[in-house]
Amino acid sequence: MSHHFDLLVIGGGVIGLSVAWRAARRGLRTAVVDPAPGSGASHAAAGMLAPVSEVTYTEEPLLRLGLASLDRWPAFAAELGADSGLDLDYRTDGTLDVAFGADDLAALDELAAFTEKLGLPAERLTGRECRRLEPMLAPSVRGGLLAGGDAWVDPRRVTGALLAALARTGGALVRSRVAGVETTAGTTAGTETAGTGTGTGTGTVTGVRLATGEIIGASRVLLAAGAWSGALEGLPAEAVPPVRPVKGQIMRLRSPSRILQRCVRGVVHGSSVYLVPRGDGEVVVGATQEEMGFDTRVTAGGMWELLRDARELVPGVTELELGDVVAGLRPGTPDNLPLVGPTIVPGLSLATGHHRGGVLLAPLTADLCLGDADGELSASCSPLRFQERR
Amino acid sequence: MSHHFDLLVIGGGVIGLSVAWRAARRGLRTAVVDPAPGSGASHAAAGMLAPVSEVTYTEEPLLRLGLASLDRWPAFAAELGADSGLDLDYRTDGTLDVAFGADDLAALDELAAFTEKLGLPAERLTGRECRRLEPMLAPSVRGGLLAGGDAWVDPRRVTGALLAALARTGGALVRSRVAGVETTAGTTAGTETAGTGTGTGTGTVTGVRLATGEIIGASRVLLAAGAWSGALEGLPAEAVPPVRPVKGQIMRLRSPSRILQRCVRGVVHGSSVYLVPRGDGEVVVGATQEEMGFDTRVTAGGMWELLRDARELVPGVTELELGDVVAGLRPGTPDNLPLVGPTIVPGLSLATGHHRGGVLLAPLTADLCLGDADGELSASCSPLRFQERR
Repeated sequence: MSHHFDLLVIGGGVIGLSVAWRAARRGLRTAVVDPAPGSGASHAAAGMLAPVSEVTYTEEPLLRLGLASLDRWPAFAAELGADSGLDLDYRTDGTLDVAFGADDLAALDELAAFTEKLGLPAERLTGRECRRLEPMLAPSVRGGLLAGGDAWVDPRRVTGALLAALARTGGALVRSRVAGVETTAGTTAGTETAGTGTGTGTGTVTGVRLATGEIIGASRVLLAAGAWSGALEGLPAEAVPPVRPVKGQIMRLRSPSRILQRCVRGVVHGSSVYLVPRGDGEVVVGATQEEMGFDTRVTAGGMWELLRDARELVPGVTELELGDVVAGLRPGTPDNLPLVGPTIVPGLSLATGHHRGGVLLAPLTADLCLGDADGELSASCSPLRFQERR
Repeated sequence: MSHHFDLLVIGGGVIGLSVAWRAARRGLRTAVVDPAPGSGASHAAAGMLAPVSEVTYTEEPLLRLGLASLDRWPAFAAELGADSGLDLDYRTDGTLDVAFGADDLAALDELAAFTEKLGLPAERLTGRECRRLEPMLAPSVRGGLLAGGDAWVDPRRVTGALLAALARTGGALVRSRVAGVETTAGTTAGTETAGTGTGTGTGTVTGVRLATGEIIGASRVLLAAGAWSGALEGLPAEAVPPVRPVKGQIMRLRSPSRILQRCVRGVVHGSSVYLVPRGDGEVVVGATQEEMGFDTRVTAGGMWELLRDARELVPGVTELELGDVVAGLRPGTPDNLPLVGPTIVPGLSLATGHHRGGVLLAPLTADLCLGDADGELSASCSPLRFQERR
């Protein structure tokens, strides 16, 4: 293994691996450092690629990012499939948003009007039409909106494919923990130095120090450690990304045959629940949103909430076998927008803060990091929006 | 290993192991045959030793069996602890049955009167008194009955201790599957012979044939294979035990500290739910009762039912971490009474059909099999009650 890279990525989730694979594909000497790649939020994610129904549609900058990334997914999936030789279970049958009560129906009408304004394919359906598409839906469903442009993918297959593609394109994977960044101002050591520097006083980033003590040099370091991105040692306070963990519990159920043809979501008891079907009959039910700090316990209450809401949407889920239940930590930001791009620290970039949208935003994030996205998109997720404010 | 035993037990659950250990303790050459001892219904069981609240109290024969076995538990637990050197987490703090509505309260009053008639310790409590005993109980609990004589035990520890005690007292364990019984009428072979004999035409049982083809001789064979006891080859039709699998799903939750001091149960949404606390903070929530054949899938619906009911009783369970969820198959019988004692086939006895009561009834079952229980108890669970009727 070379000990100097053009690009060193801290974090082997769907974001870090996507950037690294795209970089390696272009001939950059690239490495990813992660003790357990693909085991964090990417392992818990459902993989919906549904930019419109996912955001509060007042959040137009986030929506633009989502749409730009959804556009990139077909080519991204095709190239990743080709480079890895693996199947991603990438599907493009759309999302069906359903409504139960008058309030939900009014919200669907608003969403339909908004979608139309954006020029996106969407079809307003009666309850009966919804059940014709998805016979397992509850009889109490009174209407729906079919977002035909939405897609989904199996995030566990995606990280598996990214790891394979990274290796095939010459990228390195270092299964270790990064203890801190190295700068021209010297080695950082211990927590007491973290966040105590001022401005760019720590100098230019020259690489990282592993937990083992080993130093790996890099011309550019990309911090893509999800909810843990704020915990890296050696950064000046202004450069520490303002991410917080937002816990999500998610359940996988198993069915001998497919019970849904597309993603189905709805608002039940005031909280949004979705069911994502896989090709092998698996149905993913997600997800709780909990502000609990770095807590990844699967709780009785989380399970109960998911089961209660899922059976309101599709009563037949009660017959399905329980697969696994996991909790992941999404990297939330103060304005719900990701943090992608250079920081005030020379040599250090970020690709984190993707909250619920990491899988959707992975192709765009790779392009942003490699300079292949337009300036407006780039500006909306620049880390400097927080760093300059202080 | 000797290839002739005084007693050969088919099935290494809590029933089979209890009989075998007690037999070995008396100097009988004893063997248990089970490919995976302790992994069936005993692995799923909660371990409540609560004869009164467990039965519909019109079922007086079953109640008498339960009370007789509860009386035997203190000595059984002490001797098993001594023989194995292991702790069973045996607890004697009683069961608290709680009521929410007027109907439940009336049922508790009836149960209290019945318990008093039997001369058993029981105390009728107000909702406030219940919450004083168990502060985590729901505010909606309006009354309770404390059955102070009830106990409970960890069934997984019990089977572990029985295996250790069996070995220490000289008993053998054969980790294999029994394919059929051997008789003086010759080797039984293939399913086509099962249940086709008439009367005692197959002769005296002389041992068993393993799935490997190996024969193990025994003067007496005890069939204690729980829900699978009806599937043994080589028995005449009249001797096949009328057991059916009754599926139970059960959930273990983890708490850093004990949230309950005793077993708590109640009727929620028409179904009975109980919470059994362990010394290490674990809380067992049980159990569904489903007639599904030999189906041991953990389902979304089973989980949902347990969680829904448990949180009605003790809302704080939602904060607990999910441990494991398993499904077990109880051996049900047509009259809800177990099948313990000799059959019409010479040399073959049964100890099965214990349904929800296997852990409670284990000490009594051992005594029944070894001739140490009174005739009335013995008569009420004789297998001949079904075999003579045909």
